Amino acid sequence: MKTAVTRAGVTAHKKKGLIIINTGNGKGKTTAALGVALRACGYGMKVIMLQFFKGKWKSGELRSAPKLETFEIVPMGQGFTWESKDVEVDKAMVRKAWEAGKEKILSGNYDIVILDEINYALSYGFLAIEDVVEFLKNKPAMLHVILTGRDARPELVEIADLVTEMCEIKHPFEQGISAQKGIEF
Amino acid sequence: MKTAVTRAGVTAHKKKGLIIINTGNGKGKTTAALGVALRACGYGMKVIMLQFFKGKWKSGELRSAPKLETFEIVPMGQGFTWESKDVEVDKAMVRKAWEAGKEKILSGNYDIVILDEINYALSYGFLAIEDVVEFLKNKPAMLHVILTGRDARPELVEIADLVTEMCEIKHPFEQGISAQKGIEF
Repeated sequence: MKTAVTRAGVTAHKKKGLIIINTGNGKGKTTAALGVALRACGYGMKVIMLQFFKGKWKSGELRSAPKLETFEIVPMGQGFTWESKDVEVDKAMVRKAWEAGKEKILSGNYDIVILDEINYALSYGFLAIEDVVEFLKNKPAMLHVILTGRDARPELVEIADLVTEMCEIKHPFEQGISAQKGIEF
Repeated sequence: MKTAVTRAGVTAHKKKGLIIINTGNGKGKTTAALGVALRACGYGMKVIMLQFFKGKWKSGELRSAPKLETFEIVPMGQGFTWESKDVEVDKAMVRKAWEAGKEKILSGNYDIVILDEINYALSYGFLAIEDVVEFLKNKPAMLHVILTGRDARPELVEIADLVTEMCEIKHPFEQGISAQKGIEF
């Protein structure tokens, strides 16, 4: 039987590796995953982020990661898929990223694996949702996996432990303000 | 006249320091602010986070921050206010944090100032909303200010450029799973 627990602070006893989803149309999905990495590295935990769509362009996070010593970011893509002319290239890229993700998850080398923007790959049908769900249900027990991106599939939400929807209330693009260094990228 | 802009990528020209709010009942408000810090430090930008309610306990972020070189976290509190017996002590603490925040904002030493959990202070009435709004409206033009915490006041949302609500869809406490190192703290 599960330990009875309330949000008010009655002790919960169970610990396990969580499946965490950051979804929604607002900012902060990838950014909050980066924040978890920052926090976890403070305890010497090992974290890897596979960026499903980002190319090798040197983003702020890619520049900072080495300083945290136990944080690794691997851009698997070649830019955002909606800029691509060839959907088959995108599919191949995404499948390669998922193969890498599975390998990292099973490797025993990490405490947290972040599959950044995998939700897009799933909502585009570039990966079979049942394969991903089946694999994650059998992930190593103490490993945390974070999945980001809009339109998280309900099958994924179903097996997740922690799901947050980032909702856009107000966005500076609406005021004609451009994306800014350090904030958006 | 403002530059016409669409989310689809038509260029926006204006740049300015943003007022950013992360609010809502879900995870990721402080964590996304930490992610912005990670990203911004990659470009050598200078970031400070004043934690309005957190005490000197060595959280993951507090351990990691020095590694990023241009990121400073200052815990201004003595633990969460709802554990406190004395509301006057909390008020004094919050006011001290706000004075420090104003000083940092005006100092010219930072690119981003994060007022972590200030929204609680405002919703408890520990700070006068009109003072905070008036001060932020006159902040240095290129400085970004990030305000976190539940229940962001509408007066603050009104003057903000970027507002995201983190909505809880599913939380592990409901399953009797305790808060975990690197994820929650």
